[in-house]
Amino acid sequence: MAKPTPLSGFPEFLPAERFVEQEVVATLARTFELHGFANLETRAVEPMDQLLAKGETSKEVYVLKRLQDTGDGDAGMGLHFDLTVPFARFVLENSGKLDFPFRRYQIQKVWRGERPQAGRFREFTQADIDVVGRDTLGFHHDVEVARVMAEALGRLEFLPGFRIQVNNRKLIQGFYLGLGASDPMKVMQLVDKLDKLPAEKLASLLQSDAGLSADQADQTLALAQICSGDTSFVEAVRALGVTHDLLDEGLAELAAVVDGCASITDDRVRVVADLSIARGLDYYTGTVFETRLDGFESLGSICSGGRYDSLASDGRTTYPGVGISFGVSRALVPLLQQGVVRASRSVPSAVLVALTSDDGRAEAEAVAQQLRTNGTPTEVAPKADKFGKQIAYADKRGIPYVLFLNENGPEIKDIRSGEQVPIDPATWVPAAADLRPTITQNDALPISKDQK
Amino acid sequence: MAKPTPLSGFPEFLPAERFVEQEVVATLARTFELHGFANLETRAVEPMDQLLAKGETSKEVYVLKRLQDTGDGDAGMGLHFDLTVPFARFVLENSGKLDFPFRRYQIQKVWRGERPQAGRFREFTQADIDVVGRDTLGFHHDVEVARVMAEALGRLEFLPGFRIQVNNRKLIQGFYLGLGASDPMKVMQLVDKLDKLPAEKLASLLQSDAGLSADQADQTLALAQICSGDTSFVEAVRALGVTHDLLDEGLAELAAVVDGCASITDDRVRVVADLSIARGLDYYTGTVFETRLDGFESLGSICSGGRYDSLASDGRTTYPGVGISFGVSRALVPLLQQGVVRASRSVPSAVLVALTSDDGRAEAEAVAQQLRTNGTPTEVAPKADKFGKQIAYADKRGIPYVLFLNENGPEIKDIRSGEQVPIDPATWVPAAADLRPTITQNDALPISKDQK
Repeated sequence: MAKPTPLSGFPEFLPAERFVEQEVVATLARTFELHGFANLETRAVEPMDQLLAKGETSKEVYVLKRLQDTGDGDAGMGLHFDLTVPFARFVLENSGKLDFPFRRYQIQKVWRGERPQAGRFREFTQADIDVVGRDTLGFHHDVEVARVMAEALGRLEFLPGFRIQVNNRKLIQGFYLGLGASDPMKVMQLVDKLDKLPAEKLASLLQSDAGLSADQADQTLALAQICSGDTSFVEAVRALGVTHDLLDEGLAELAAVVDGCASITDDRVRVVADLSIARGLDYYTGTVFETRLDGFESLGSICSGGRYDSLASDGRTTYPGVGISFGVSRALVPLLQQGVVRASRSVPSAVLVALTSDDGRAEAEAVAQQLRTNGTPTEVAPKADKFGKQIAYADKRGIPYVLFLNENGPEIKDIRSGEQVPIDPATWVPAAADLRPTITQNDALPISKDQK
Repeated sequence: MAKPTPLSGFPEFLPAERFVEQEVVATLARTFELHGFANLETRAVEPMDQLLAKGETSKEVYVLKRLQDTGDGDAGMGLHFDLTVPFARFVLENSGKLDFPFRRYQIQKVWRGERPQAGRFREFTQADIDVVGRDTLGFHHDVEVARVMAEALGRLEFLPGFRIQVNNRKLIQGFYLGLGASDPMKVMQLVDKLDKLPAEKLASLLQSDAGLSADQADQTLALAQICSGDTSFVEAVRALGVTHDLLDEGLAELAAVVDGCASITDDRVRVVADLSIARGLDYYTGTVFETRLDGFESLGSICSGGRYDSLASDGRTTYPGVGISFGVSRALVPLLQQGVVRASRSVPSAVLVALTSDDGRAEAEAVAQQLRTNGTPTEVAPKADKFGKQIAYADKRGIPYVLFLNENGPEIKDIRSGEQVPIDPATWVPAAADLRPTITQNDALPISKDQK
C-alpha cells in the first residue's frame, strides 16, 4: 500500500512518547489504588438511547454498524463519549454485586464524532475517579476525590503546575436566589460564559436574558470575581450582603473542600475556591471542579467533575456520586508535541549484549537472560557487526550500556562515559536511574508563561 | 432508567475479576519490556480499505458512522479486528522515525462484528508481540518471539499449563512439493481442518480436492501426525523418505525454534514441534504458532502467530515480520467465569482506618496518608459506625487489616486471625503478601483433565 497519512483527530504516539503516556497512566493508577479505588474497564459501546440521554453531546456520537448487517440488533450501539455514562450503566447493571460506597477508577479511550479540526480529538484517553453510594453518599467524598486527583496529578513530576478550581452549585444558586433572581439556572448558564465574554457584555445579557436588575447583575459578577486559595472567600461572599440557606450550605461545603485539601497543596499543586466556575452541565448538584495547567490555559480545563445527587437511578434506588475526570490526552498531546516532556530512550532496554560472532548468539542470549532475571531489560544485538556499529545501534535508541563477551569474561561499557568494566552477569544491575527510560522536562521552554 | 442487561459478546469484569486481568496485562508487559519490546497503542479505527484487504474477516468489521454525518469523510472508517493490520499501517506511516529491527508489544481491545452467540466475543483484548525489520529480518527473531511469549505466559502462575505448537510453512510446503503435489496450498488448507474432520474423510478430500494419490494422501497424514517436544521430529520426517530443498530449510528452522526454547520449558510450559499446525492464513511464510491451554483445549488456540516475509510494504520497501498474539480475553474469561482463578479482594485497600467518631475523620485521614506514603493502599471508613460494623465492612471487601485510633495510640487488627497489636503508622507496613490482592487458583477444579 502507499504510505499512509495520519487521521485528523486520532493522535498516536511514537514509542518514546508512548512511554511517557504509560508512565502517566501508571502513576495515576498507583495513586488511585493507594486510596482504595478499584479499577474498572467497561466495554467501548453503549446502547444509543443511553448515549443520547445526555443531550449536549448527542451529535458527537459514533454509531456502529456491522459491515454486513443482517438486522440482528447491533443497530442501536455507539461508542461511549465519556466514562461517566458507562459507569452509571455498570453500577445499575451490577448493583447487587457491588459494595457501596464504591470507589472506582477507569482509564480508557473515549470517542467523539467531532468535525475534523485542529486541537479537537476524536479519540482520546480519560482518567476518571468516582465514588458512588446507594441512597446516600457522605459529603466528605467530595473532599476525597479532590485530594486524590490533586495528589495524582502532583505526582506527575514533569507536569507543569496546576490549579484545581472548586465551586459549589448550592453556593451560587443560593446566592442568585438570595438576590431575588427568578431563573437561577439561566443566570448560571450565562456566568459559565465568563471566560468567553467581556464582563460588560455579560452584565447586559444577565439583564436582558435572565431578567436581573443592573444591581443584581453587578452582584452576580462580583460573586464570580471571588477567588481564594484558602477559606477567606467566605468572608468576601458575606461582604456582598446576600443571604440564603442554600448559600450557607454551599459556603460550608466549599470551605470544607478547600480546607480539606490544604495539607496536600504547595506552589505547584493548588486547590482554590473560584466562584466563576459553574460547569455547563445540568446534573451537577453541589461541588464542581475545573483545572487549569500553568502556561497551558488555552487548553481549557484539563480535569473536571463534581457531585451529582443522582449519578444513576433505576426508579427504585438512586445512586449519588462525586467524581473527577482528567483529560490524559488533552494535557499530554500538547506537552509531547511541543517537546516540553520527553523520554530518554525509545526502547525499554537498558543493556545491549554485543555479538562477537553470529555463532555466539546462544551464549549472548544466556547472559542477557541472567540480566533479565535480575530485572534489567536487555536485548541482544541483531547481527555480529563491528563493535562500533553495535555501539551506534545502542546509541541511536538511547540504550545506556553495551555488554561485551570478551575472552577474559563479560565487560560492560557505559556508552555515555566510555567507561568499561568487568562484571558478573549473575549479579550486575545498572544504576537505578538507568533501569527504565527517564522522563525529562525541557526547562528551556516557557512552560509557566502566564502563571505569576 | 430500567436495570440494564449485559450485551452479548461484550464481556465485562467486576472489580476483583478486573484485578486478575490487570495482573495478567502487567505481567505480560513486564516480561515483554525485559526483552526490549516497546509498547505501542494505535488508534481504534482504520480506513475500511485497509481492514478489507485482509479478506477473510471482512464481514466481521464494525463500520463507524457519525450520528449527524455531514459528509466530511468519516464514512470510510471501521474498528480494527486485530492488532496486526494497525501495526503494519503504523510501521509504514512512521517508518522514517522508527529504528529497525523494531520490537513492539501492544495490548488492546479489538472488535469483531460477529453474530451474537455463546463464546464468541465481539470486543476482546489481545496481547501481541512482533519484531519487524526493514528489507531483512534475521531468523533468530522467530526463536525470540516464541521464547518471550512462552516466558510471559509461564509467569502467569495461575494459568494452567500450556503447549506452544510450532510448525513451519516451508517444511510442509517442501514436503508436499517433494511428494509431487501440484497444489501444495490446497493441501495445506485441507490439513488445517485435521482437528475438525476424521482422518479418513481428510484422506479422501486430499484425493478428490487436491489431486493427491492415495499414497500421497497417506504420506501427508503421516507427516501431520508427527509431534515431538525435541528435535527428534526431524528423523521422523526423514523416515517418510520425501526430499526437497524447501523441506530441508523448514526442518532446520523448526529444529532451531524447538532447540532455542528448550532452556525455558518445563512440565507446565512446553514448546513442541507439531506438524499438524498449518494456520489458515495466506500471509505466513515460515514459522507458525498455535497454543493450547491444558484442560481448555475446546477454546482452540489461545496464542497464535508466525513469520510473514511481508508484514507491510509501500511498494519500494518491504518490512518482514514475525509475531505472536495472545488472546487475553479468550483465555481469561472462561477461567474467571468458571471460578478457576480469583482475586482475594475486591478493593486495592490493605487497611481500613476505623472511625471512632465522625469528628475524627481528619485524624483518621492523616494516619491513612502515612500508610499510603509507605506504599500501603488504605481507605478510611465511610461512617463512624460501631466497630463491629466497620470490621464487617472490611471483611466483606476482603480488606485484611483494620486500624483503630485508640486512646493509647494506633492499633492494627488482622481481622483474619483477630490479633490486634499497637503500631507506629509512620513505619508500619503489612506483610508483603497482603499489600495487594492475591490471585489464587481453585485447585479443586479439574483444570488439567485431558493433559496426561
